[in-house]
Amino acid sequence: MSDGKPIHAPSGPARQPGVAEDAVFAAHRGGKLHVRSTMPLTDRESLSIAYTPGVARVSSAIARDESLAREYTWRSRLVAVVSDGTAVLGLGNIGPAAALPVMEGKAALFAEFAGLDAIPIVLATTDVDEIVDTVERIAPSFGGINLEDISAPRCFEVERRLRERLPIPVFHDDQHGTAIVVLAALGNAARVTGRSLGDLRVVVSGAGAAGVACTRILLAAGIGDIAVADSKGVLHQGREHLTDVKAALARDTNRAGLTGPLEDALRDADVFLGLSAGKVDEDAVATMAPDAIVFALANPDPEVDPEVAHRHAAVVATGRSDYPNQINNVLAFPGVFAGAFDAGARTITEGMELAAARAVSEVVSDSLTAQQIVPTPFDPRVTPAVAAAVAAQARADGVARA
Amino acid sequence: MSDGKPIHAPSGPARQPGVAEDAVFAAHRGGKLHVRSTMPLTDRESLSIAYTPGVARVSSAIARDESLAREYTWRSRLVAVVSDGTAVLGLGNIGPAAALPVMEGKAALFAEFAGLDAIPIVLATTDVDEIVDTVERIAPSFGGINLEDISAPRCFEVERRLRERLPIPVFHDDQHGTAIVVLAALGNAARVTGRSLGDLRVVVSGAGAAGVACTRILLAAGIGDIAVADSKGVLHQGREHLTDVKAALARDTNRAGLTGPLEDALRDADVFLGLSAGKVDEDAVATMAPDAIVFALANPDPEVDPEVAHRHAAVVATGRSDYPNQINNVLAFPGVFAGAFDAGARTITEGMELAAARAVSEVVSDSLTAQQIVPTPFDPRVTPAVAAAVAAQARADGVARA
Repeated sequence: MSDGKPIHAPSGPARQPGVAEDAVFAAHRGGKLHVRSTMPLTDRESLSIAYTPGVARVSSAIARDESLAREYTWRSRLVAVVSDGTAVLGLGNIGPAAALPVMEGKAALFAEFAGLDAIPIVLATTDVDEIVDTVERIAPSFGGINLEDISAPRCFEVERRLRERLPIPVFHDDQHGTAIVVLAALGNAARVTGRSLGDLRVVVSGAGAAGVACTRILLAAGIGDIAVADSKGVLHQGREHLTDVKAALARDTNRAGLTGPLEDALRDADVFLGLSAGKVDEDAVATMAPDAIVFALANPDPEVDPEVAHRHAAVVATGRSDYPNQINNVLAFPGVFAGAFDAGARTITEGMELAAARAVSEVVSDSLTAQQIVPTPFDPRVTPAVAAAVAAQARADGVARA
Repeated sequence: MSDGKPIHAPSGPARQPGVAEDAVFAAHRGGKLHVRSTMPLTDRESLSIAYTPGVARVSSAIARDESLAREYTWRSRLVAVVSDGTAVLGLGNIGPAAALPVMEGKAALFAEFAGLDAIPIVLATTDVDEIVDTVERIAPSFGGINLEDISAPRCFEVERRLRERLPIPVFHDDQHGTAIVVLAALGNAARVTGRSLGDLRVVVSGAGAAGVACTRILLAAGIGDIAVADSKGVLHQGREHLTDVKAALARDTNRAGLTGPLEDALRDADVFLGLSAGKVDEDAVATMAPDAIVFALANPDPEVDPEVAHRHAAVVATGRSDYPNQINNVLAFPGVFAGAFDAGARTITEGMELAAARAVSEVVSDSLTAQQIVPTPFDPRVTPAVAAAVAAQARADGVARA
């Protein structure tokens, strides 16, 4: 302990049979996160400062003025990465224990990309009321809530209610992180092909968490002509049995009143935005307008093969790291939370999300090409730029405490 | 980021006026904990291992066999330090935000003393049902639950129900941590004065969390003659309006059928165990048996002034770091959780607590004096010894998974 190392060095759990231990499993052994004290607790003096009796003075000060918790606890820079394990990656409803490695990875990204502290909280419930109550009750421990991999449509209700109830940022990354990066990329794709966002006719494939949020942010950014399709075709006001969220989308989109399959909507469309993993034939892609933009974001299998897409489109983006123009949420969420925390934001506004998108797109504005409409995930300029833009917008929107 | 440092270095919240910033406040600025990734995430390769797509294989393996979560997530060595802020130090019910610095300190002690990961979870509820439900729902995130500073008698019910419901260790440190160290110290105090535990007549002052748990462990260790007093005097079966917990204590203690005040019970008693902050006059202490043992553990003001106690007692212990024989829970809880985790224990048994007490006492068995009945908090032998004893007992008690 005298050198600050743990004095107890356990051997760790025994290796289980039946799992091929390769580089991936070896890297996950024992988990991917550690909590450490910011100060060594190696003598009476340090203990009396960090713990009793010294800590009683800090607690008393916060009891008198709770706003001091922002200064004298770690929560003002602490994110809870909350999941019920119902929509994990492409694996679906695998439960909280199996979701934990993903949430640990997400927390590690907060640490590595933004220097924030983040903790996975995986839940033994999938009931909306119980999720909301539980997060509300643990919320005094945290500075912000990042919802992750909660299936639609429950995710919309969970986020809406938590945003109403909690005085801290609540951000469903599968919705808004994706939406921010898509908007940033689409703005640059338009620019590199000589158009503005308002010129584009967009077809969105998928009306889940990402599809809904992307459509909403594209509408907010001034794209008036969007058609959204789920597995049953384009959403329109005449369709029956729509969820509340889809019914609202049907009202707010599909200016042309389309009623057929996705493929029909693609004819003369400027943009295909794939967020559903449903494959699209080359024949349909070929009917798109000149200088088409294809974002085929399903991972690991894009809705349109990138090679095929390039035969018909001027700009192609995917979710994959082995092609140019990777749409990766890590371009957004670290900076969004860092900026919100810097400003002491009570919530994340749409304006802050739009500002984040502008910041991402501007990082590559001087080096814009069809092969580089977004920065790479490891571009060190991104997170500080997003954080600064988000913090400034929080202040402009009147939701900042600092 | 290329050197593993956070790329975003915020200035931190602005200094608030009105708080005298001294060494204690300065040390708490920004909180006392950090979460870090166990591996740098600085390139595509590392990201593809720690996060997508690699992590999907680990999650899939756990979805097939949840026991693998013990190996491939951090939860098997992760403690939730859970408090509702109702009985924080000597400050009372100060709420979750004000409790947070204390819980951060506790988590830091887990890290520093046992190399474990620990996270403060402070709750926006004081309702027993809600506390139990909330902890149960977040439990898949953690390997163990350390309850802290929850007021009696709710703390007994919260712990009992969580122990029934959860397949992981649940440990209310204010009860059992104190009890373990008190038993260790009392065993050595008896030995150094030439007696065995079974010879002792004990008077306990306080029937809160610590008083109840200490009495229970002393009974389990073979002390048959214990009288417990609260502010209204000695607990006996004829007393009315006792809580369930106190009524049970009244049945299981007070062999002599005492009915008066604490001071009367002290006459000819071998041991005074103060856990209540209620002052005891020197006149009463003077009536104790020869070679009396006085543990006056209230902090910062012991029930009996240590100078006064020494005039009448052969062995004196306090909760303070500036006197010999400090009864400090840090001698117990880091090793208890480390040992439970090493064994993959499903729960903490009374046997494991007794084994922990023996391990603490044995650390100083070769150097035992009336001034050294327990190790100092910084003795590096303690936590490994406690962990080994607890793990071995978990296996002996049939509650170990490893």
